[in-house]
Amino acid sequence: MSSDVAKMAPLQAFSERSECNSLGAADNQRDVLVCGWVYRYRDQGGVLFVDLRDRSGVVQVVFDLAIDADLLKRADALRAEDVISVRGKVRLRDKNAINPKLKTGEIEILATGLELLSKAKPSPIPLDEHDDEASEELRLEYRFLDLRRKPMQEALRVRHEFIRSVRNFLDDNGFWEIETPILNKSTPEGARDFLVPSRLNAGEFYALPQSPQIFKQLLMVAGSERYYQIARCFRDEDLRRDRQPEFTQIDIELSFVDKEMIMRLNQKMIAHACKAAFGIEIDPEPQRITYRDAMELYGNDKPDVRFDMKLVELGDWAPMTEFKVFKGAAETGRLKALCVPGGASLSRKDIDDLTQWVMQDFKAKGLAWVKVTENGLESLITKFLPDAAQKALLERTNAKAGDIIFFAGDRADIVFATLSALRLRLAEKLGMIPDVYKALWVVDFPLFDHDHETNALISVHHPFTAAVPEDARIVLEAAQAETISPEMHKQLLGVRSNAYDFVLNGVEIGGGSIRIHDSKMQQAIFRLLRITDEEAQNRFGFLLKGLEFGAPPHGGIAFGVDRVLMLGLKRFSIRDVMAFPKTQKGTCLMSGAPSSVDDKQLRELYLKSTAQGHGGPKAARAKDGGSGEGHGGPKAARAKDGGSGEGHGGPKAAAEKNKTP
Amino acid sequence: MSSDVAKMAPLQAFSERSECNSLGAADNQRDVLVCGWVYRYRDQGGVLFVDLRDRSGVVQVVFDLAIDADLLKRADALRAEDVISVRGKVRLRDKNAINPKLKTGEIEILATGLELLSKAKPSPIPLDEHDDEASEELRLEYRFLDLRRKPMQEALRVRHEFIRSVRNFLDDNGFWEIETPILNKSTPEGARDFLVPSRLNAGEFYALPQSPQIFKQLLMVAGSERYYQIARCFRDEDLRRDRQPEFTQIDIELSFVDKEMIMRLNQKMIAHACKAAFGIEIDPEPQRITYRDAMELYGNDKPDVRFDMKLVELGDWAPMTEFKVFKGAAETGRLKALCVPGGASLSRKDIDDLTQWVMQDFKAKGLAWVKVTENGLESLITKFLPDAAQKALLERTNAKAGDIIFFAGDRADIVFATLSALRLRLAEKLGMIPDVYKALWVVDFPLFDHDHETNALISVHHPFTAAVPEDARIVLEAAQAETISPEMHKQLLGVRSNAYDFVLNGVEIGGGSIRIHDSKMQQAIFRLLRITDEEAQNRFGFLLKGLEFGAPPHGGIAFGVDRVLMLGLKRFSIRDVMAFPKTQKGTCLMSGAPSSVDDKQLRELYLKSTAQGHGGPKAARAKDGGSGEGHGGPKAARAKDGGSGEGHGGPKAAAEKNKTP
Repeated sequence: MSSDVAKMAPLQAFSERSECNSLGAADNQRDVLVCGWVYRYRDQGGVLFVDLRDRSGVVQVVFDLAIDADLLKRADALRAEDVISVRGKVRLRDKNAINPKLKTGEIEILATGLELLSKAKPSPIPLDEHDDEASEELRLEYRFLDLRRKPMQEALRVRHEFIRSVRNFLDDNGFWEIETPILNKSTPEGARDFLVPSRLNAGEFYALPQSPQIFKQLLMVAGSERYYQIARCFRDEDLRRDRQPEFTQIDIELSFVDKEMIMRLNQKMIAHACKAAFGIEIDPEPQRITYRDAMELYGNDKPDVRFDMKLVELGDWAPMTEFKVFKGAAETGRLKALCVPGGASLSRKDIDDLTQWVMQDFKAKGLAWVKVTENGLESLITKFLPDAAQKALLERTNAKAGDIIFFAGDRADIVFATLSALRLRLAEKLGMIPDVYKALWVVDFPLFDHDHETNALISVHHPFTAAVPEDARIVLEAAQAETISPEMHKQLLGVRSNAYDFVLNGVEIGGGSIRIHDSKMQQAIFRLLRITDEEAQNRFGFLLKGLEFGAPPHGGIAFGVDRVLMLGLKRFSIRDVMAFPKTQKGTCLMSGAPSSVDDKQLRELYLKSTAQGHGGPKAARAKDGGSGEGHGGPKAARAKDGGSGEGHGGPKAAAEKNKTP
Repeated sequence: MSSDVAKMAPLQAFSERSECNSLGAADNQRDVLVCGWVYRYRDQGGVLFVDLRDRSGVVQVVFDLAIDADLLKRADALRAEDVISVRGKVRLRDKNAINPKLKTGEIEILATGLELLSKAKPSPIPLDEHDDEASEELRLEYRFLDLRRKPMQEALRVRHEFIRSVRNFLDDNGFWEIETPILNKSTPEGARDFLVPSRLNAGEFYALPQSPQIFKQLLMVAGSERYYQIARCFRDEDLRRDRQPEFTQIDIELSFVDKEMIMRLNQKMIAHACKAAFGIEIDPEPQRITYRDAMELYGNDKPDVRFDMKLVELGDWAPMTEFKVFKGAAETGRLKALCVPGGASLSRKDIDDLTQWVMQDFKAKGLAWVKVTENGLESLITKFLPDAAQKALLERTNAKAGDIIFFAGDRADIVFATLSALRLRLAEKLGMIPDVYKALWVVDFPLFDHDHETNALISVHHPFTAAVPEDARIVLEAAQAETISPEMHKQLLGVRSNAYDFVLNGVEIGGGSIRIHDSKMQQAIFRLLRITDEEAQNRFGFLLKGLEFGAPPHGGIAFGVDRVLMLGLKRFSIRDVMAFPKTQKGTCLMSGAPSSVDDKQLRELYLKSTAQGHGGPKAARAKDGGSGEGHGGPKAARAKDGGSGEGHGGPKAAAEKNKTP
């Protein structure tokens, strides 16, 4: 770049600037000023074409030897990503030069002035919109360049639009956004807290909020009635593809409402915001399904209902067979089947691979199957299936020639996990999933789960979740009992919570519940969860206190913003819908966070590091920026999603929220 | 409370609920359901009047023996703050019972059904709107009750309205809200960082952001062009009345703009949002004043211009006197005066108190004064003032009979601090401050200040602030010089920054600047600030890198939300405009944060606590919830406000941003 460009008198008069994309045929012959980045350029001998890009779009600028030789010379020195401002006259392109793919494709700007605002080094990552070949490590290190790419700009814009639509909807419905603290009290439970040492209170720590759960409930006690917050939440977990140490949720709480009112309001909100941000249609009155049905029909509590292919119950069919494995499973566990339309096309190798997979990832003992042909069933196990059993099987599964039926007979959790995973994988493989958005409410979750380790009850959601009114009596009675009889224990496991999860295309994007607003009921729950009074006081004392001073009936919900964006924008990773994400090791490859700090800083905080050498070299870190963990093992598929909903977590809820029915 | 109330079949059908304040004469004879808190009640023998309060307001409910004796009996058991739902019929009140102060004062609800939703213990703090006698400690401990008080509900509502208006304004002006990380890299500078130990990266720490400064600049590099964020910021400082460890700022950054565009946009935004939220009128084109004029005329860089009373220059008047103190000050420092209209009414004791104050708090050596009477000047120093000097003094100060003139002659910083403080204190005392809102831009701050300790230059704002274009040459030349001559040093101290502070009623509520977008200029600044390349790389490396890859010209601003709310709502403390504030020791009296944590948690973070006994008893803490520190000593008055603007801070900027001209 010749230095005379830099030394030119400034052409900039930014207040006169036109956005690139705003220009069109109507501006023909207008003198304009445009600013932006040199996107592409091509020299046609005496004429230089520069595609100038700003946030709005791209416009073609022409430097012509015949008009201004000196100007062309200076423009010749421009390179990609230089920042320039250009004065010129808009003119219509020749008919054959019109670019219908470009909004400004009918015109170009004949340059009369050029100022170099900022010279750019060559970008280490390709910024062409059709090219995302760069490694994710490099993209994250040069995030300020990566974000220039069209899909990333789009993600930022749409994220803004989505949140904006949510806000407008809630504002219009009488909600107040109220900020709750980021520096909180640590209440060890669920996921791990991020801690913040306090300098003014030696030896003490704040915790970053896993969610504003207790604060929003106290806001209801405070009479705020309709609260929301686009809330930053934090969990110090080992990260996965769709996890980040910090994430954003739409956090909502209302007073004087019932479940029905909350569900109706929120389904409307999501449909509204998804339409506004993504232009997608979601049924404003989504289907509802009970937790029990979700498990029985789809094998999991966040079923993808874009396609049918339900699980089929075979427990009472097993006795018709002569297959011990089936009979045994039906007696001591469960036997269910999945009929895959068109699945007879699967090769032996396909089936072997699937078998390996379910054995390894879901602890299945094998994978029995039969193919349905014009000539009847084909399988290694047909010999165990008498004609009547074969006929009944076809009837129950509705199988037709060309289908395949997979069987899972085992402990209930293994059966559900296996068939649920098979269902999704085969639907994808066989192209059965239509390009639509299907929402679903899952309701009537159990309130408690049985913790096999401690042989005690644990909360499925969090311990502030109310039971459905019909089942509340069981809870109160059990809490008053001296000991919990096995019968009572079983009854408690049947208690339904007044909770609801919002599932979109098989992803749980939101969840909430009616809360306990009665301190006696709250104490009853704690007793059943074997949380001592002292422990309860220490962990939730301020909520318990609040409930004693006039708490209104209330409930709420939380939606994971990042999840919704991933779905709405069809992005593979949560990192592609955030401006500055962390890697799976929780590092920011751009800024270098986290980093070592001065000993003086630690001394002021009354801390000593016990780490060796204060962290490894940065270079070693770049490795962990990769793009996810593949398809996820059984844990991944089963763990209750941390990035959406209100997984504030009961004692073990975050890790074990998947319950066996 | 008789238990039969609790056991009644639920009357609640929340979807039918009317908000209290929505009811009026038009609803006469309508059957309604209202829910809320028992606010006040009075028994008139056979008739019980209950004022029912919800978020919207208050409505009177009548339980009448003649209508339903059993119902009355149950209602009799109600106490203040019980949560109830009431069914009843709206009826017009008797003419003489109409309460014109109440929006629902024309009607009452004749109860036909009552359900106790939640029984309340007696509130430890009075919740009547006219009573805020409770200590702040108690209010903070029972924040969930304190927030029920009308002024607090009002604060939450108006805060929401203010932020909403700001958002709408920015959304309509093409801004995208983009979330920047809370888990950041520590860059030790300005205020102290809050640290967050990383579990996945042994010995390393995140820092909570003091502001999103670097990220918003990198978003400009990324081509986002118009960014904003209602951003939570964190500073681990010793707290004062208007400081909180976490606070909220409106954070804005734009590309391809000049100072003028930013100022115009933001003054419009503030006027718009203040009108919408507070109903107050702020001049959408506020007056502008240079830093130099602000100091000379008002003695500080955030003058309260609701009243006049400017400082008067007396440097060239001193030689007319025979007073050594004045003459000496004029020669080696500054001599200025403040004429206080009507101030002759101050008693000798008043003046003695003021003298003590300025000597103690501002290091003044004394406080000379003359009273202006019908008979001329009255003072101990008139003997040193020949007639010509007296005449000249009256002319310059425009003093009239009944006024008092105070003198300050000393080092410049002492003169300014003394007269500035006197001006404010006397204006208040003498009732000179009108009940209006006056905004002001302060511009042309110096870019550098001289650090007496290190004898070096420091940034007045932060090191990313650009100089005004006219002065940029001085910076570049000085940076290239082998050594900085005294002459050059003086020139550098005269360089004006391209920065602007927004001041409302004497409070700095916002501040920003045009940034350096040229990496060479940025390096020049670092060189002048004696920041080595290595240090710059370590602290701001990722910004410097960003500037090399095509950074657009950009600038921005940040406003302190809490400050604006304090002003707009006329609240004394920042704690009165936040839902859940911390005390001056950084504790939350409601939740008990911060608190000690398990050793296991620390071990996982590779940390050991060096604190004795892990923090004192909670009881000792409640002491520090008090309401501020009185009028503030010189430090308090001078330190650049941490709660607004972009005090990201140069090396020492946060502590020393008050510059001597």
